Amino acid sequence: MDTLNDEFYMKLAVQMAASAQGQTGVNPVVGCVLVKDGRVVGMGAHLQMGTAHAEVHALDMAGALAEGATAYVTLEPCSHHGRTPPCAERLIADRVKRVVIATTDPNPLVAGRGVELLRAHGVQVDVGVMEAEARELNEAFNKYIVTRMPFVTLKTASTLDGKIATRTGQSKWISGEASREAVHTLRHRHQAIMVGATTVALDDPQLTTRLPVPGLHPIRVVVDSTLRIPLDARVVTDGLAPTIVLTTERAAPAKAAALAARGVTVLRCGDAPRVDLALAMRALSEREIGSVLLEGGGQLNGAMLSARLVDKIVMFIAPKIVGGASAPGSFSFEGYDSMDEAVVLDRVAMKPYGEDLCLSGYPRYAERASVTSKEVE
Amino acid sequence: MDTLNDEFYMKLAVQMAASAQGQTGVNPVVGCVLVKDGRVVGMGAHLQMGTAHAEVHALDMAGALAEGATAYVTLEPCSHHGRTPPCAERLIADRVKRVVIATTDPNPLVAGRGVELLRAHGVQVDVGVMEAEARELNEAFNKYIVTRMPFVTLKTASTLDGKIATRTGQSKWISGEASREAVHTLRHRHQAIMVGATTVALDDPQLTTRLPVPGLHPIRVVVDSTLRIPLDARVVTDGLAPTIVLTTERAAPAKAAALAARGVTVLRCGDAPRVDLALAMRALSEREIGSVLLEGGGQLNGAMLSARLVDKIVMFIAPKIVGGASAPGSFSFEGYDSMDEAVVLDRVAMKPYGEDLCLSGYPRYAERASVTSKEVE
Repeated sequence: MDTLNDEFYMKLAVQMAASAQGQTGVNPVVGCVLVKDGRVVGMGAHLQMGTAHAEVHALDMAGALAEGATAYVTLEPCSHHGRTPPCAERLIADRVKRVVIATTDPNPLVAGRGVELLRAHGVQVDVGVMEAEARELNEAFNKYIVTRMPFVTLKTASTLDGKIATRTGQSKWISGEASREAVHTLRHRHQAIMVGATTVALDDPQLTTRLPVPGLHPIRVVVDSTLRIPLDARVVTDGLAPTIVLTTERAAPAKAAALAARGVTVLRCGDAPRVDLALAMRALSEREIGSVLLEGGGQLNGAMLSARLVDKIVMFIAPKIVGGASAPGSFSFEGYDSMDEAVVLDRVAMKPYGEDLCLSGYPRYAERASVTSKEVE
Repeated sequence: MDTLNDEFYMKLAVQMAASAQGQTGVNPVVGCVLVKDGRVVGMGAHLQMGTAHAEVHALDMAGALAEGATAYVTLEPCSHHGRTPPCAERLIADRVKRVVIATTDPNPLVAGRGVELLRAHGVQVDVGVMEAEARELNEAFNKYIVTRMPFVTLKTASTLDGKIATRTGQSKWISGEASREAVHTLRHRHQAIMVGATTVALDDPQLTTRLPVPGLHPIRVVVDSTLRIPLDARVVTDGLAPTIVLTTERAAPAKAAALAARGVTVLRCGDAPRVDLALAMRALSEREIGSVLLEGGGQLNGAMLSARLVDKIVMFIAPKIVGGASAPGSFSFEGYDSMDEAVVLDRVAMKPYGEDLCLSGYPRYAERASVTSKEVE
């Protein structure tokens, strides 16, 4: 049985925040629980960019009961006037007695100022309850708000021998039903999904979120150096979500105009023969895309990894061996000479999905690794 | 807390049996616990081929207290006169009242006859307590005693992208210390270890068991179609364990004689240019080798898998990505056209070893798979 303590209420706040993952754009997800005299008197979560913060929802629910209450918040209350008034001021005005915070806000506009403001007004503040869990909830926001680059999650499904298809190109089905549902949950939780033009040309995918309950469709992003995407591709015609095509200055203006006429945003990233992927990520960031799910083939995955633009890797591994030297792998890039240069995953987590294994972690790029600023598609 | 019941005592018997894995040759490991009036009165395990069985050790320890006792045995007591007298007769003679058996003996000479004999003499017999655990203990024996072919465990250590070395051939170190110790435990538990001549020529390995406590060295088996193994290779000269070289009728008699003169057993398996691996496994079996740990490179692994001679796969997967299309993989074989033909692992188990993941399972070969009777080295 759970014990009633700070963790108990913070766990609820974290779960409330987690439920909103994918619907707050470049804003963080935040949960807040208000407790007074042994009773929960308010709860709230930030639900959508530009709307009320978690604390405001919880305080509105509590009304006069907020006075003397303890607030459990997964992220440091804001201290600046942004799209909404500062939450720290509201907590003070409503006479909350104690604020328990899971983690401080990496946003340079906050970064401890919320805590300072509360303490300056005599509010007791404790920081660090369930900090790791709360930080992971907002790993995309935590990167974006500091670097103004999107957090890229690379997802792949491969066999035990690292293949994403047979030697004849057959890839249906590597992973099982449970893994595929998990992938659609990842789509819901990312603002954009990115693939290469080859995938669009060969498979004509929708790149939407399909789950037993409705999910949010990510913005579709296609890396397409030569603008060879067919005008009748589903991502161009189906209108289910916005589509962005990343290309170069060299791409044919007529094709770009035809795409634009169909509502596709065409972004030119560099004047090299292939898309400059770092410039491309910057361009997405400027459009307030803070999280990208990369579902590329081996070439695009390898190029993004070589360019050190991948922040997280989620691999679904099916317990199969398919063989074939020419069968494509998850990561096609020139590779490293030395095992010391290999990209190593940190904080590895493993979870079974049906017959498959999901292994996830955070790439650590070796200092001496031979970086290839490879561009693709 | 554990509850005193049949499982409680059988678990002890299973642990005792497990402790002897690797030291009983082609005999099964067996544990036995004797319990009377709420007290353990005897315990024993089969320790070495040709010596007393588990029941005999336990009955000797119990002496007169065996009368009226319950015996917990991980494997059906034998009913035939083999290297030792039948244990079922001894249990009857010592007036044991009840025998609890984890699993029946697949040995065609026993296969239920032990249970019948006990019951015919009024002994109460219960079968099936911790059956799965007990069967797994003797998975090599279970195959060997029925098919007279060795049980082959394929072990590999690869990166997340399925590579066993970098593009320059560097393979030290893919896996971590914990994984490497687990591999040496596997060596202790198998009668033979098998590699290709390329591995011997390039790495000059000892192929011995090196652990924090002493382990048993497996018989070294080298697949070497053209007898190119150097006469000064450690496996030829160090005398730490017997060495068998598997070759073909075509191999040079002079080199074979030179190896034999150094104590190496040379076995000719077929007259094709490359070793017939099925014949080779049969030849090992005839020498009472019932379990083989395959630590091959991609070619030998792929050939053994294609020939459907692999019974179990143990993969250590390091959370690294090393890249390189030419970097060698765990399984080099021509591969399948269709995902339906892929070799699928059944009964997959996962366990972390330090930073690495160990994934093990039992290959299920597709009915329609294109079998290539490939021969190597």
